[in-house]
Amino acid sequence: MSAVSPVLERLDQNLDASLERLFELLKIKSISTDPHYADDCRRAAEWLVADLKAIGFDAGVRPTPGHAMVVAHHEGPAGSPHILFYGHYDVQPVDPLDLWESDPFAPAVREVEPGHKVITARGASDDKGQLMTFVEACRAWKAEHGNLPCRITLLFEGEEESGSPSLKPFLEANAEELKADFALVCDTDMWDRTTPSICTSLRGLVGEELVVKAANRDLHSGMYGGPAANPIRILANILADIHDETGRVTIPGFYEGVEETPSQVLKAWETLGQDARSFLGPIGLSEPAGEKGRSVLEMVWARPTAEFNGISGGYTGKGFKTVIAAEASAKVSFRLVHQQDPKKIRAAFRQFAAERVPADCKIEFHPHGGSPAIQLGYDSPFLTKARQALTDEWRKQAVTVGSGGSIPVVGDFRTYLGMESLLVGFGLADDRIHSPNEKYELNSFAKGQRSWARILEALAARG
Amino acid sequence: MSAVSPVLERLDQNLDASLERLFELLKIKSISTDPHYADDCRRAAEWLVADLKAIGFDAGVRPTPGHAMVVAHHEGPAGSPHILFYGHYDVQPVDPLDLWESDPFAPAVREVEPGHKVITARGASDDKGQLMTFVEACRAWKAEHGNLPCRITLLFEGEEESGSPSLKPFLEANAEELKADFALVCDTDMWDRTTPSICTSLRGLVGEELVVKAANRDLHSGMYGGPAANPIRILANILADIHDETGRVTIPGFYEGVEETPSQVLKAWETLGQDARSFLGPIGLSEPAGEKGRSVLEMVWARPTAEFNGISGGYTGKGFKTVIAAEASAKVSFRLVHQQDPKKIRAAFRQFAAERVPADCKIEFHPHGGSPAIQLGYDSPFLTKARQALTDEWRKQAVTVGSGGSIPVVGDFRTYLGMESLLVGFGLADDRIHSPNEKYELNSFAKGQRSWARILEALAARG
Repeated sequence: MSAVSPVLERLDQNLDASLERLFELLKIKSISTDPHYADDCRRAAEWLVADLKAIGFDAGVRPTPGHAMVVAHHEGPAGSPHILFYGHYDVQPVDPLDLWESDPFAPAVREVEPGHKVITARGASDDKGQLMTFVEACRAWKAEHGNLPCRITLLFEGEEESGSPSLKPFLEANAEELKADFALVCDTDMWDRTTPSICTSLRGLVGEELVVKAANRDLHSGMYGGPAANPIRILANILADIHDETGRVTIPGFYEGVEETPSQVLKAWETLGQDARSFLGPIGLSEPAGEKGRSVLEMVWARPTAEFNGISGGYTGKGFKTVIAAEASAKVSFRLVHQQDPKKIRAAFRQFAAERVPADCKIEFHPHGGSPAIQLGYDSPFLTKARQALTDEWRKQAVTVGSGGSIPVVGDFRTYLGMESLLVGFGLADDRIHSPNEKYELNSFAKGQRSWARILEALAARG
Repeated sequence: MSAVSPVLERLDQNLDASLERLFELLKIKSISTDPHYADDCRRAAEWLVADLKAIGFDAGVRPTPGHAMVVAHHEGPAGSPHILFYGHYDVQPVDPLDLWESDPFAPAVREVEPGHKVITARGASDDKGQLMTFVEACRAWKAEHGNLPCRITLLFEGEEESGSPSLKPFLEANAEELKADFALVCDTDMWDRTTPSICTSLRGLVGEELVVKAANRDLHSGMYGGPAANPIRILANILADIHDETGRVTIPGFYEGVEETPSQVLKAWETLGQDARSFLGPIGLSEPAGEKGRSVLEMVWARPTAEFNGISGGYTGKGFKTVIAAEASAKVSFRLVHQQDPKKIRAAFRQFAAERVPADCKIEFHPHGGSPAIQLGYDSPFLTKARQALTDEWRKQAVTVGSGGSIPVVGDFRTYLGMESLLVGFGLADDRIHSPNEKYELNSFAKGQRSWARILEALAARG
């Protein structure tokens, strides 16, 4: 019998007790954006520290200029990997309160249909329920074996829902203490109700604002229309030139560092049953607008984009004014993958745009953030082990997915701790996080605990 | 001796008296946009009626829902043409008052340099000084000959500076009374200080607002960037396609009805000394943006355009949001010349734009006005006569110019009275109309009166 079997049995037996603990945490109104709830945030951190100490962690509330961090350590067997687990104990505000079917801070288990139970409360899914799956796995392992299979550090943040202002400085100041072999981040969803998933890639981002300036003042389009340069026309020409007819970005050098996704990965994505119809249907669209010949999942998870996030110029109020504006501006962003270099992309875009501005006009650029993509190797041993553990637990092949957006903490771990992350979570797309009536599947909570126990065992194994 | 000679002599002798009359009118604060000055507007209309009656006109104040019109009639010799003269007695507001070097309603003659005198007051140029040049010409002719050389109807509006809301209904209701052989409109400038001009063409206008709609809500550009259609990109593609690399509009059928300007007219424009440098320099530009191979004057006076007057979509505030907007919109206008049909242009543009919208997106159009161009034949006998009269008075060839914008009253005369207009005025570009320290050249006032006397004589002549 493997070491994990009795742990799984214990987790099953103690599910009610673990629910009671989760409910205690869910009752604390740790809304981080509202200063009115600062004491509640502190209480949530303290509750976690007490609970972790009860398990045997060396845990503490760690002050920051904002809400406190919770940091806890537990040794593992000699030679075992050192894992940092990340979650957050703060929650979103609950407005509009009248749309909630029950008190957001009075957690309950509800049977929504026969055999289908959910935990309802603010934070049930995002992220208290999720982080407690890992804590419970540690508790059961420790109770069963008197130790943990790996060396584990826990980091629970209290400002994730309010922009994480203290995270970077905290990581930088405590890098030695927090650096592990890799991180487990539990703040994401399963692929669907029955399919576990691991997210291994996040796209990077380069944001640019450009301002095209033509005449030294707004002009009357009757008096000047024809001879006078129109900055909206210049801007439209720049933006229209950025994509060719196949949806490919035309900026020279843009695809430098972009790798083709391995065919076996593409094939695995194909089996997920997500196509243009299912992806675009819910948002009222049907025709993929990205690069021709690529699936929607590849477009979002493994291909770079140029997107226009805002545009403004001339008269935009009601009615009409026959004005030729002095200037027009746009906000443009690029999602990056693989080894694309944010600095090179920004420079190439600026040159591309500047070349399209007539000699008597000007263009100004304002940078808005730049971060490279994150890509865990598809052949990482940690990934392989975690995927197998999830597959064993859910009796369905765990899938490796990407994320089209960024999850800042993953980039911060890489930047400040030199550490890659595996993103594993048990939320579902319909958990209504950030909305009224947030829920977490009871099944996610129970099998999430079991999944972590299996993952810990797998990661601890040599080779 | 011709009939006009003693009239010219009389005008010269009575210049001071004509200035006194103009000053009386300039002292009246007939600001039409501000209801506070409604009584002043009424007084200005009554002053004009009294003055016209003194000359011998059958004149009256004609109520409208807004400020009153002044209408006056005087018979002419049998067989002489019937001329409608148009001007306006209302003036612009005077804010900011502290930038005026003297009270805007205390008119004065100032010598700005030796021998160069100007009349300073709000309305001196726009349009009280201008309209009084014609009234004085009539007064002198009547005093000298006991009659006028043509049948003359005067129409003085009191709402020109506030959008002329009563003009169309008034023309429609009084079409029989007001319709003449043609109109003289005195509300424009000379080409320069020494060169008289007649404006014979005004561009038409078609305004369109287009709204491109993609997804059913704003999207996160990380989650959807790539597959999801971006309305700003679609809109930029539409706008960028409207012009080719030579500045020509590519909408099919756009140039239907556009005529090439006669080469002698183009040659005459070339002699005016206006080039790209002098036209664009003052607005900070140097490269003509219109159709290649055409002069700036041809671009503005005789060529149609497509202009983008406003554009809006996505996030346009400070900072950055990684949003893909649900919709984006633009305001587009077309300046028309010659026989271009506003309805056809609108329809062709809508088809052109709609063809560039992906099948799963939508486009909506909102019309904003449509009027054809106005073009007096370059060989009109009225034009030939008036041009010769101006040439005689100023001892310099009068030039035939166009206007890139529209002067609504000219279109209204055509629509409601079936009547073409000659636009003759003696303002200068530096008269600061609509600004503090408005002025009218004393020379414009004196030679303007003489010019009208000559024009009346010329128009009255047979053949």
